[in-house]
This record gives sequence, C-alpha cells and structure tokens, in this order.
Amino acid sequence: MIKSGIFGASGYTGFEVVKILDHHPQVSISFAASSSSAGRRLTELYPAGPEVMLVDPATASLDEVDVVFLCLPHGAAAPWAVAALEAGVRVIDLSADFRLKNGGTYARWYGQEHTAPQLLPEAVYGLTESARQALPQARLVANPGCYPTSILLALQPVIRAGAADGTIIADSKSGVSGAGRTPKQGSHFVEVAGNFSPYLIGQAHRHLPEIEQSLKEWHGDPPQLIFSPHLLPVPRGILSTIYVPLVGGWSVEALWEIYAITYPGEPFVRLLPVGEVATLTHAVYTNRCVIGLTVAADTLILTSAIDNLLKGAAGQAVQNMNLMFGLDETAGLVANIG
Amino acid sequence: MIKSGIFGASGYTGFEVVKILDHHPQVSISFAASSSSAGRRLTELYPAGPEVMLVDPATASLDEVDVVFLCLPHGAAAPWAVAALEAGVRVIDLSADFRLKNGGTYARWYGQEHTAPQLLPEAVYGLTESARQALPQARLVANPGCYPTSILLALQPVIRAGAADGTIIADSKSGVSGAGRTPKQGSHFVEVAGNFSPYLIGQAHRHLPEIEQSLKEWHGDPPQLIFSPHLLPVPRGILSTIYVPLVGGWSVEALWEIYAITYPGEPFVRLLPVGEVATLTHAVYTNRCVIGLTVAADTLILTSAIDNLLKGAAGQAVQNMNLMFGLDETAGLVANIG
Amino acid sequence: MIKSGIFGASGYTGFEVVKILDHHPQVSISFAASSSSAGRRLTELYPAGPEVMLVDPATASLDEVDVVFLCLPHGAAAPWAVAALEAGVRVIDLSADFRLKNGGTYARWYGQEHTAPQLLPEAVYGLTESARQALPQARLVANPGCYPTSILLALQPVIRAGAADGTIIADSKSGVSGAGRTPKQGSHFVEVAGNFSPYLIGQAHRHLPEIEQSLKEWHGDPPQLIFSPHLLPVPRGILSTIYVPLVGGWSVEALWEIYAITYPGEPFVRLLPVGEVATLTHAVYTNRCVIGLTVAADTLILTSAIDNLLKGAAGQAVQNMNLMFGLDETAGLVANIG
Amino acid sequence: MIKSGIFGASGYTGFEVVKILDHHPQVSISFAASSSSAGRRLTELYPAGPEVMLVDPATASLDEVDVVFLCLPHGAAAPWAVAALEAGVRVIDLSADFRLKNGGTYARWYGQEHTAPQLLPEAVYGLTESARQALPQARLVANPGCYPTSILLALQPVIRAGAADGTIIADSKSGVSGAGRTPKQGSHFVEVAGNFSPYLIGQAHRHLPEIEQSLKEWHGDPPQLIFSPHLLPVPRGILSTIYVPLVGGWSVEALWEIYAITYPGEPFVRLLPVGEVATLTHAVYTNRCVIGLTVAADTLILTSAIDNLLKGAAGQAVQNMNLMFGLDETAGLVANIG
Repeated sequence: MIKSGIFGASGYTGFEVVKILDHHPQVSISFAASSSSAGRRLTELYPAGPEVMLVDPATASLDEVDVVFLCLPHGAAAPWAVAALEAGVRVIDLSADFRLKNGGTYARWYGQEHTAPQLLPEAVYGLTESARQALPQARLVANPGCYPTSILLALQPVIRAGAADGTIIADSKSGVSGAGRTPKQGSHFVEVAGNFSPYLIGQAHRHLPEIEQSLKEWHGDPPQLIFSPHLLPVPRGILSTIYVPLVGGWSVEALWEIYAITYPGEPFVRLLPVGEVATLTHAVYTNRCVIGLTVAADTLILTSAIDNLLKGAAGQAVQNMNLMFGLDETAGLVANIG
Repeated sequence: MIKSGIFGASGYTGFEVVKILDHHPQVSISFAASSSSAGRRLTELYPAGPEVMLVDPATASLDEVDVVFLCLPHGAAAPWAVAALEAGVRVIDLSADFRLKNGGTYARWYGQEHTAPQLLPEAVYGLTESARQALPQARLVANPGCYPTSILLALQPVIRAGAADGTIIADSKSGVSGAGRTPKQGSHFVEVAGNFSPYLIGQAHRHLPEIEQSLKEWHGDPPQLIFSPHLLPVPRGILSTIYVPLVGGWSVEALWEIYAITYPGEPFVRLLPVGEVATLTHAVYTNRCVIGLTVAADTLILTSAIDNLLKGAAGQAVQNMNLMFGLDETAGLVANIG
Repeated sequence: MIKSGIFGASGYTGFEVVKILDHHPQVSISFAASSSSAGRRLTELYPAGPEVMLVDPATASLDEVDVVFLCLPHGAAAPWAVAALEAGVRVIDLSADFRLKNGGTYARWYGQEHTAPQLLPEAVYGLTESARQALPQARLVANPGCYPTSILLALQPVIRAGAADGTIIADSKSGVSGAGRTPKQGSHFVEVAGNFSPYLIGQAHRHLPEIEQSLKEWHGDPPQLIFSPHLLPVPRGILSTIYVPLVGGWSVEALWEIYAITYPGEPFVRLLPVGEVATLTHAVYTNRCVIGLTVAADTLILTSAIDNLLKGAAGQAVQNMNLMFGLDETAGLVANIG
Repeated sequence: MIKSGIFGASGYTGFEVVKILDHHPQVSISFAASSSSAGRRLTELYPAGPEVMLVDPATASLDEVDVVFLCLPHGAAAPWAVAALEAGVRVIDLSADFRLKNGGTYARWYGQEHTAPQLLPEAVYGLTESARQALPQARLVANPGCYPTSILLALQPVIRAGAADGTIIADSKSGVSGAGRTPKQGSHFVEVAGNFSPYLIGQAHRHLPEIEQSLKEWHGDPPQLIFSPHLLPVPRGILSTIYVPLVGGWSVEALWEIYAITYPGEPFVRLLPVGEVATLTHAVYTNRCVIGLTVAADTLILTSAIDNLLKGAAGQAVQNMNLMFGLDETAGLVANIG
C-alpha cells in the first residue's frame, strides 16, 4: 500500500485528489492538510465527500508517506517540494512552480523569484502521454496546467509531424472551478450565470509559456501561439477550439492517422471519428481528453475536451502517480457512478 | 422633476433603483453614492448599466434632493434616514431598519440596539397594496423584505377573511441575488450551480418577525407561521409555496373571490385563474406579484412569485415613491425590453 | 457472474443502470435494449458512456440472463415482467407498474387497466431500507418512484413511532432528468433555466398513492398527505422539505434517536446532526439518502436529499439486485470519481 | 400610429417583437399570428408577456397594417413577403429568405429553390449600421442573422480599412434561444446544462455565405473566413471572438480610431476602451452590439457581444422599422427594467 499525503486538501483540486485516493485500491491517505481549514472535517466543506479530517500542514509528518500531492498556490508549493524531497518523499506538484524550466520565465510570468531553481532541471513535466518514459524514475513531477493539458494533447501530433504553418489560435473555454474555491466577484453566481466572458486573451495568460515550452520540445521551429481563455457558466470542464494553419497537402484523414499513431491504446485519450466534435459532456467527470479533427480552409480545427479538475489536475496527478509507482495506469481513475 | 439620491448604489438593489430611475419620466438622479466603489463608473460594475458616476456618500448633498433611497445594510441605514429627514428629505429605506415597530424585537433579531427608535412609530411599512393610504403623507417608508413581500401579498386576503386555521407553512425559494453582491462561499458559482439548499428553516430567519407583525395587523389572533427559505440556483426571483389550513366550508372559488376583491385593478398584483400555479417566469424582470390558488385536503396552497430585486426591493421602492409624490403608480415600472 | 439485461437503456434511468453495471464487479451486461435507438452505440446518445451497442428489445434473449431491469414507461413494463418471470428471470421494474398493490388504484391514477394484476400481490416494493427481508426471495421488485424514495425514507421513523399528528406536507423539488429524456416544451433549456415551477401540487401527482400505501403499512391510522412537486433548474437531484405536525412531547433529540435506531449502519442513509439541513450537494452523484431534522412550532421539519437517478432509480435498483442475489449491498455503488 | 402585424408570434423572436411593439410609443399591433398556437393567449406561452391573442395567419388582414414582421422559418417567409408587398405593406423579414442576393447560393445552403427570386435585388440587408441610407425607401428588409450581426459589426471597420490579411477566424458562442422554441434533443435542459458544444464548425453553417456576402461588399478582395459556432448553456446572448491577421504596421490604437470613426454616435454600437473585452453581460437584454479590440501577435482580436433575440433579431428589426418610417431610431428600444 502506497502512503500518500495531500497539501491543500480543501481546495477544489485537493479535494478531487482526496476523493480519488480514498477509493484507490493501492493507495492510502496518511494525511490531508489544509492551512485554512485545519481541524474541520472535509464533509463540512464538501458534504458528499469522504470522511477525512483536515490537519494543519505543520503537523503533517513527511516521514510516514511515500508521495505528496501539492495542491497549493504557486510560490507556496516549492518549499514543501524541497522539504518532501529532502525527506525522501516523491512529489507531485499541481501548482505552477516546477512547470517552466527557465527560472527567469517563471519570475517574469509569476512576479516572484523562484525559491528552488535547483530543482527545475530534474522536474518532469507530467503531461502523461508525453512523459511516460520519465515518470517511473521521477522524484518530482510538475503536473501540467488545465488549459495546457487540453491544448497540448490536441497539438502534440500535428506539431511533431511538422504539419503546422503559421500562427496557431487556441480559443479555450473553462468552467468556474478552474478559478479556485476562494470567493471572488468574478466567481459570484449572479455574475457568472447567464454570462460568458473572455479574459487575458491574446498572449497574456500564465499558461502561455508552459504551452510554448512544450511546443518547442516537439518542434525546432514551432508556430506562434495566441491563447484566449473564456469563462463558461458551468462548474467544470474545458473545451479548447484550436485553429492550426496547415502546410499544403495534408488531408484530415492523413492527420487523423497521425493522431491515431501518436495515441495508440491510450486509456485516457479518445480520438473521435473525423468530423465529429468534442463537447464538455464527452469528458466531464472522466479522466479523458477527447479530441476531434475537422479541416476547413487549409486549417485544422481541433476540439479538445477535458475535465479541468480530473485530466486537467487531480486525475492526471494520480495517473502520473500510478506510473511513478509502477501501478496500473488506470487504477482509481475509472468511475462507476457519476 | 423630482430629484433623487441613492445610497448603496453599487449593490444589486441599489443598482436596480438607479436603473429604474434613470428611465423614470418624472425623476432625475442627483447622486448615486457607494462607499466601496466611490469614484468608479457604474458600468465598471454592471457593464450594461447606465453611465452614472458613483460618489462618496460623504459628498452626497442632501440639500439638492427630494427623496433618498437607502440601499444599505441594516444598521447603516438608520443614521442616513435621520440625516435625510432632518434635511427635509423624504426617505425610502430598503434595509430592515424601520420595518419592525418594536425596537426590542429589532434588537433581538438583528443583534444590535436600534439607533433611531424615535422614528419607528412614524415609519410606514411599504407593502404598497396594503399601505396605499399612508404613503402620500409618509416621510419615511420602510420597504418590505423580499420574502415578506411574496408571502404577505399572498396571505393578506385569506388572513383578513379569517379563513386560516392552524399553523401556516411558507416554503420559500429565492435566487442568489437575494444574498447580496459581496462574494461569499455560499454564493460561489460552483457551490450554487446544480445545488439547492434550505437554510434557517423553521422560525430562524430575520424576515419572520416582519411577516408576523403584518399578520397581527390584519387579524386579532393570527395563525402561527413556519417560514423555510431555500436557495435556488438562479440569479433572481422568489417563489413561495404557502400552505394555509382552512376553517371549514371555504371553497377555492370563494377564496378566489376574496382575492379578487382585495386586489381589484392592482397594476402589480396578478391573480391567476383557480388551479393555475405561479412560476418564477411569471414575475422575473417585472414588478408584479403573481398569485395562484389551489385547495387540497382542507388546505389552501398559495403559489406566489416575485422578482426579488423589483417587487421585492427596488421596484416596490419606486412604486412607493410614485405614490408618495402623487405620480402615476406605474411610472418607470413598465418594461419594454427584457 | 450474474448476467443482466436492461430494457429501456437509452433513457436517463436505463443509462444509469448500464453505467453502474458496466463497472459492477459481479455482474455482466448481456444486452442493453432500446426500441427507439436500436442499432446505435450508447455513446452516440451519452458521449462519455460505456461502449455498449443498443439492441432491439425483440432480439433480446431472456434465456441468457438472470435478471432484467425494466426502465420503461408505465404500461410498457408489465408485459416484459410477465415474459421474464415466465422465462425464470428475476425482474426489477423501475416503472410504476407494480408499485401499487391495488389494481383499481393503479387504473385510477394511470388511466389504464393493469395488464398483469395477478403479479401485484407478490411484487416487493423495493424501498430497500424497508424491504430488506423480502428481497432475497423476491422474483419481482417494484422499484420505488424518485419522489417517494426521498419522502418515505424521511418519514418512516416518525410514522412508525406514531409521533405524527395532522396533515403532513411534502414540498419536493426535483431536477429535470426526473421528467425523462424525450424533449418537451417543459424541458427546453430556455424554459427551465432561471425558472422554478410548481406542478400538480396538492394531491394530484401519481406518486401520492404510492407514498400513502407505505404510510398505511407503517401505521394503522396514518396522517393525511399533501405532496407538492416543483421543477428545479438543475439536471439531477431531489430535495424534499417535509413538515410533520407532532403529537405533544417530542423533542428533536428524541426524534433523532428514533431515526438513528431505524437506520443503524445503513450504508446509503446518512442522518445529519440535529439542526443541519440536507442539500442536493449532499446526495447528487451518490446512492445516498441524506436526512436532516429540525423542530419548530411543534412541527418536525425534515430535509431529505437524493439523486433522483441513483437512490431514486438506478442506484436503488442495483442495491436491490445486490440483496436479491446475496451480494455485498454496496457493490458497484461506491464512486471513485464524480 | 403605425399599424403592425407579426407572423410567427409564438416563437422566441416573434415574441420579442410583440413585447417591444407592445410598448412602442408610435406603433400599434394589429395582429399577432401563429399557426401552431392560434386561438391561445400569448401569456399561455410566455406567462410574463403582454395580453395578446394569437390569431390564425389565414385570418390576418394585410389591409389593416403598414408593416409586417415575418418571424417564420426560411422558406415559409417568402410567400408572405410576396403577399404583403402586393397589398402595399412593407416587410421586415427575420428569416433567411432575402438575405442572400444570389438565388443559387440560397438554394445550395438552404436546400430548396427560392420561391420569390424576383424580390432578391430590391431586398435591403438590414444590418442597420451599414444600411442606414437604404432603409427609408425600403419596401423589403432582410433582417440579418444573429451570428452575422455580431461578426459583421465587429469586422466592418477593419475590412473596409483593408487592414485584414489572411484567414479570419470567428469563434462564436450562442445561447440556446438561438436554436428556436421547438423542443429538440439538443435543447433539452439536461443535455445543455453543464455542457458546451461546437457544431457545424469550419465552413458548414448557413450563416457563412451571409457574412461572406457583406465582406465582399466592403472589400474587393476580402479575406477567407472560418466560422465556428458553439452552443452556450445560457438562454440568450452571442459572443464572437474574432481573429483577424493584420497587414503590417497597424497598432491597436490606430485600429480603434477607425472603429470610432466608423461608428460615431451610434446608439446601439458601444466601442470599449482598448484592451477591454466584451462579455454577454454587456449586451444581454439590450439592443447593443458591444465591441472590444485587442492586438497580439500581429492579430486583431475582436470580442463582440449582442443579445441574439434583440440586436440579433427582434431589436434590430424594430430599429430598422424605426428608420423605415422616419421615427427616432431608439424608439421602443431603451429598457427601463430588465
């Protein structure tokens, strides 16, 4: 039995990790820590959740666990990663702290110096379907952002194939849980219901450099990217509609083959038949990324759907953990209800 | 042209008052004050709203207005009412500060001593359809709470007729704007969407004494009341389902006649044919209270729908203002869009 | 491995049965039949669902299954129940066809003669927590309606204790999936979103006689019942707020003890601490019925929440199947995601 | 007083026309016709609507009106347009029947021969802000589609300025009322709530040729267009996010000036300050098109919001009527509630 600890267990992402691990056949939860809600039962926050007591992170004993999940704001995760690694505990960080290889880029986008830059080289960027080989040995996994997961899984095959030519546009739409559990004006029910709003469109959102970094890994001269997030009036789910100008000569069928070859037998990538489109319903409450391909006007139009809290966060984190510890990749991740 | 000022113009209720007055043919807005958003344009908060600058309440000049609307939290309204009356300005208070005639009851339910108890006797409880005679002379109008408006307009006829016998149950359901604009965990989109929750059920909600006070006015020995509010996943609207045990011998048709006689030609009360039920759609975005009557098992079942921000707050406030100043009761209150 | 067949697999309830059984460790699906969608894959209707082919019910072989689930409209289920029982197959009927013991009552409420009245005496009304003893031998289980499940589980202890006195009022609110998958004006998104509507209030809804029948089983002289359903703008979940006038002398604590004794160790009944209220979030996407108790004005106020498609239909059906076949009662019913 | 008639008054668009005209100071409604709901009161369908009786279109007398609004499906509108014009009645057609100048294009996209091609040349495409000069003399106005209105008003200035270079991408999101009032699987509340779905993306939607036709009017060699509609889980509103590759040298400020010059003093176009984005809340329940400009990676990113039923249909139709009859352009179109 693998022993796990969760930091930040009271947030939406932390709660999902707890919920999955609570039923995971080969993992036990040693502690679920929350600085804001220490001493409360998790069911006070999430009435249908498992009966778990939230503890003060200061009292969480790293000695008794094999792995920790850091579901903390950026900046807050890095010190815990350092402490855990020192204690010989493997780390899956769901914050942005170890996603960018370049500390300077991190500082520019996140407005603060990185406090553990020495760990950046070894951190494995945990887009599972692209990182599978590195995961078994990884001590520190940087779990991808939710938007990047939906965009990168959709772009990987076409970028690697060198079929993209010209500026890519990712028009993404996310449910409100992506903005976190802390109440803000922008997450007030009355402001969100019946509304739909773009924000930080163009090249202004922090997930942009993370996406660009992977594109660069996959192609020496990757296309430019415009990334426009929008807030959807739904609790969860991301749908990205991605426009990729094509170099001449690619048919949608040929592209589809590339996708099929890139993701053969992937348990959590579902490639739709040519011309079908992904919707939130395809993916919400699952750990799947569902991808559809259409071509029009020499442009590949990808629709890519995930559950932002599962494949976009907690689900992918457990998927990564499964591979880090040599377990069945799908363990704990296949729902029977919901 | 009647000159008006609004305090608390940045909240949901204050904004609705501004929106209505902005198009009112006989009223101008001299100032719209907000302590939290002074110096900002109203459209920064409500992008489709009128182009009005929010001013600091300290700079709002009472000398230049004929009437003020107090859209403030309870406790904060009373001092402004005192100041306005001293300046010869008539007051429509949308807070709870002047609704209860008994200062002790106020202190018990609102947890603080009343700071202007000397004004309680003269304050007119502005349930328009019950207060019409007092309004033209009123200096100070206490605008009813949203739940009480939906419940009292539905109960008035049957209570006055002495047809009620036994404990009345008001099972009310309200949209989220009733909880105000300040973000709280309970108004977070993710917590509200897909959910439905009772709160303060039984005899625990502050609107209870306000309802009981009116029932006592209408009948020497009024029935007991159980009042159970619930939070609906909609932005606006209240529907109250009210169960009134009947003294023997009342048919639904006879009751319906009593209702028709009580509200003859009322522009903002709509009595549905026997057996039809009110829904939110009947009332939302209107200043109407829509009432349906059904009888089963010797019990009158009333369904009563209002828009909590209009007939339940800002709309009724303007309706009261119209009567206070001798204007057409419907002026400014009949929509052409929306 | 128990072999199962589902009739009506394309509806919301049928789909939930398929989804649960698809992951059930001791049950396999031999066929999923749908007359309207025969020949289509289930994922064409429910994109995230399991990969199951829908077959024509005429081709479904009763010889190869141990149990069938009838997720059909009332009237359509009875003939399949007859055929299945004749083939030696046990039947769990999710329609209303075998819920009422009295064929005349059935005819009156459902507007048609019962076609298999000879089976009514042996049918077990499958409110699991009340039917546990009869289930192991049952050939034919009548799965309760969704509203009755939420109301009866909440009422059982207080009724059996003889503590109720006077007319009970059940003010129930249901999500839209309760009205079925066939598109109607009343389930159109634009009509439902932002709305909230009572319907068939008083003593007019078909679930009334089903509730009354159980009350009569539990008490020789049961109280009258008023039952008022409302349509909530959410996809799933039922919350019933139930008002029970009490005979003198009952405290909420004493009542709570009765409830605790009635449901000791029940895996799918959760009794909240005194004064807490149930909400949809407590129950949705689980097989639980969550019950809260409050007392005010000599009235017990129960709040009772279920997922209408799970504990209110498919979940309870599988729970019943588990007990019929001697399996762990919770098998297949504990989610790890969602 | 101008006398008007509405055909198709029971649909969402027709109802909005009735609602606006019911309060229009210079227009009266002579008849509101509906073939599906003749003989019913409009409030049976829309409980908060005006008290108007729906008549059989066969009994609607064209002799008594000055103008008709055709809120009918494509194909059904053309014959009524012919009849009305013959009776000397001016026509505002909200269907697609007279939007495309080329009958062959119409036949290709709408799958049927045009039945009144002789009227195509004289029909004025009623994108008000582009058609103002032609409207006073127009006998027949083809009211633009909802998506085209949101896209064309946003594109007009940049296209006329010749600043666009390369394929334009319009990623549009619409509320469900855009799909009409007839219940379909795709408009079922349970299918829509919590979901978000692309459909007919690329170059497959019937609104594409209508947009292309206007682009060609505005520029001799217009860019290609990709148009991807998505269904939003909201009742009303369209937001289009539009990506326009720029010819070199255009700053966002210079573009903004072009927009300001194109729409000077327009009552129903609101240009946001540079960098601000339009949201549904900016436009819903108003007749405004709200436009925001951002530039990134040599691409102009436009956000354009309208209410699909108002500026995208009924509101623009009345705006056109006002100009056709020499009335104040805003008459009837400025809300005081809602």
